[in-house]
Amino acid sequence: MLQLFGYWRSSASYRVRIVMQLKGLDYEYHPVNLRQGEQREKAYHRVNPQGLVPFLIDGDVQFGQSVAIMEYLDETYPAYPLMPSAAQARARVRQIVNMIACDTHPLDNLRVLTYLEQDLGLGKAQRDAWYRHWIDETFRVLEPLLMTTAGVYCVGNEVTLADCMLVPQVYNARRYDMTLDEYPTIARIVANCEQLQAFIKAAPANQPDAG
Amino acid sequence: MLQLFGYWRSSASYRVRIVMQLKGLDYEYHPVNLRQGEQREKAYHRVNPQGLVPFLIDGDVQFGQSVAIMEYLDETYPAYPLMPSAAQARARVRQIVNMIACDTHPLDNLRVLTYLEQDLGLGKAQRDAWYRHWIDETFRVLEPLLMTTAGVYCVGNEVTLADCMLVPQVYNARRYDMTLDEYPTIARIVANCEQLQAFIKAAPANQPDAG
Repeated sequence: MLQLFGYWRSSASYRVRIVMQLKGLDYEYHPVNLRQGEQREKAYHRVNPQGLVPFLIDGDVQFGQSVAIMEYLDETYPAYPLMPSAAQARARVRQIVNMIACDTHPLDNLRVLTYLEQDLGLGKAQRDAWYRHWIDETFRVLEPLLMTTAGVYCVGNEVTLADCMLVPQVYNARRYDMTLDEYPTIARIVANCEQLQAFIKAAPANQPDAG
Repeated sequence: MLQLFGYWRSSASYRVRIVMQLKGLDYEYHPVNLRQGEQREKAYHRVNPQGLVPFLIDGDVQFGQSVAIMEYLDETYPAYPLMPSAAQARARVRQIVNMIACDTHPLDNLRVLTYLEQDLGLGKAQRDAWYRHWIDETFRVLEPLLMTTAGVYCVGNEVTLADCMLVPQVYNARRYDMTLDEYPTIARIVANCEQLQAFIKAAPANQPDAG
């Protein structure tokens, strides 16, 4: 059986959980408590020396990085495909995936927030402004892009990997009390996704380690 | 003809140039001078509203995000394939791609360094320490991973997208006077890549806008 190491509130773990739920893949879930620092402990480093979640074990195939895991699952378990077949739409999906995976989330990752606080001595207000700044930087360009690409979901009327990225990123924004008032297309797409059972089952609050 | 908007010293542009050179793709090059702020000007925002490089135009297909461009080029122009065919090796390549594309480079991007200086008031020493910190964080886990996956190149004995990511990241490290003394496997792979004409032609110093 597939094994997933993750954390309920990690948005990168959340992305992978959505993919697994959409594809109906059973998996054994191994919570790694990031708030208690379990990702820095030897026991977890024996699994993933990078000390990050998520991490997937599928028999001999064992690796980290959420986007790599999502692409792997989509290629290996083709039921409920999450990439369009046309080159142009694939490019668009991957553009959106990377706008979130590269330009947004890494700046707001726990290890970065910790560096800002512990190494640079930033207070909560500056740290929170930083967090929201990078989300806004992406959302203000993602919103007009989605106006040209979206149907029910980010790219057309089928769920793609772009949606599996967007919903967890919006979850992070809401955690920091950001509204989507300026981003009606993003809000609409996320509302559509959140009606699907797979997205509900994958949501942080519905994980066994939620606290 | 393919059109690439980029900047000689942008490591994300450098990645795409390597892929194009390996595949022998001709392209028209449009330099966007990041140091002079051309990425923030209206003329460039009409091309790419996100104001980032690289950006690719291939007829009707027009999009940004270097990793999305690399995957697109590899799928659309299959000569000299840059992804292995086996699922396990593909996962490994994408893991390495994302360790650099997500966990490393976005933290050292120009717009982030500008925020550190202008919004947070960091001096050069703190900014440089930040820059090197995130490279070291990745390289110290990438080095042992590559010891298990590398042949001549990152994954086995064929060039993959992982190598197209690693060489520009090492270029960035060297710009900040980092040595690879602690990363002999990374150093060996990069030296192997740098012997290939495609990597030489794609190098920053060999671009028309190099200054």
